[in-house]
Amino acid sequence: MSGTLYGVGVGPGDPELLTLKAARVLGEVPVVVFVCTELKGVAGPSMARGIVADHITPDKTEIAIPIEMSEDLGHGRRAYDAACITISEHLSAGRDVAMLCEGDPLLYGSFMYVLERLGSEFKAVTIPGVSSLGAAAADANLSLVSRTESLLVVPATIDEATLQDRLAMTDAAAIFKVGRHMAKIKRVLGTLGRVDDATYVERASGVDGRVLAFTDAPDKAPYFSMVLVTKRNAP
Amino acid sequence: MSGTLYGVGVGPGDPELLTLKAARVLGEVPVVVFVCTELKGVAGPSMARGIVADHITPDKTEIAIPIEMSEDLGHGRRAYDAACITISEHLSAGRDVAMLCEGDPLLYGSFMYVLERLGSEFKAVTIPGVSSLGAAAADANLSLVSRTESLLVVPATIDEATLQDRLAMTDAAAIFKVGRHMAKIKRVLGTLGRVDDATYVERASGVDGRVLAFTDAPDKAPYFSMVLVTKRNAP
Repeated sequence: MSGTLYGVGVGPGDPELLTLKAARVLGEVPVVVFVCTELKGVAGPSMARGIVADHITPDKTEIAIPIEMSEDLGHGRRAYDAACITISEHLSAGRDVAMLCEGDPLLYGSFMYVLERLGSEFKAVTIPGVSSLGAAAADANLSLVSRTESLLVVPATIDEATLQDRLAMTDAAAIFKVGRHMAKIKRVLGTLGRVDDATYVERASGVDGRVLAFTDAPDKAPYFSMVLVTKRNAP
Repeated sequence: MSGTLYGVGVGPGDPELLTLKAARVLGEVPVVVFVCTELKGVAGPSMARGIVADHITPDKTEIAIPIEMSEDLGHGRRAYDAACITISEHLSAGRDVAMLCEGDPLLYGSFMYVLERLGSEFKAVTIPGVSSLGAAAADANLSLVSRTESLLVVPATIDEATLQDRLAMTDAAAIFKVGRHMAKIKRVLGTLGRVDDATYVERASGVDGRVLAFTDAPDKAPYFSMVLVTKRNAP
């Protein structure tokens, strides 16, 4: 009998934001998989593994998927292809495998790349996690949406015209993956007259996290930062 | 010294999707607050309290906020006003208070109604939770968004033209609060040619939850149901 492939959301960064279910499954599975950064062919740290380090006992088999942080999608494809061969060997031998994903596995998560390769062949179970979206709102103590409002979740990496068109159509927004796109965001929110509705959140729920008024946001932000745009209601 | 007001996300329904942090805080606070439904003046069950029932020991003080499930917003306002007087008395006396919220406290959560009344006077801490969004995607094993895609979170309760305009501008969507608005959603997705991209998820993560192709969705859905619209990539 084949093993089960789990996509385990480990939450946004604070190890205490792991769910009871994720903690139980991590205790039970013999094999864990995670993405780690790679720089010039040398594997670096894994954020997802770091969050749950206390749950990874020495008896586990660990499979790292090194992903170069670049635009070379072909490299990423080959890394997932290779990892999935190893993962499928474990599953075929009846061993359960858990892939660790920061935040929620299906919201910009890397689990989909494994799921689309192995999901039709093996039993797959996703364990949802606390997303960076909820964590950023919590750090800022800002209500994202209520009642009839809508929220757009959008990556800062899209082109400026599209970003502006989409933001113009929503009450609230969470702009992900800010990184080096801050100047673009500043122009768009300025044009839409929503600078005063915006809040900058860096590394939500992390010990080094911080919340700033958008006007105080740095020109160059880390990849794991977010701009929240919310409707300000009179208190 | 005043107590701390916690907004505690208890997750989408499965009691195991509580975070370690929420479990710890619920163990520590002496006072818990939750919304419960009210029908013709009689208080009914609380979904949020039900999720964490095992964590509510008999020594806790419990404060229920009865909300009539109707369009009478004035009634809701008065219920929150009254509860916040009691909550502020506990906080002023130095007792920590945790308000339980299904899903995430700041995504269509009721915590904002307490936060906007008491957040400026007392220390407030939000503990993010697993949202029904992530749980619905997990139940369906569907990637919501990846790479440069954007996701619209929108309540089915808005008017048809606005719903259609907003859905036309996004790659993926999660339509919340489906309830009695299914016919409207069917018309809009039909017009946009996205019926085949849609999936219906009822009571995500719950023991009575289910996932159906959109074309098989019931004409009248429960309030806690969702339609996911995702870009289908070739596997």
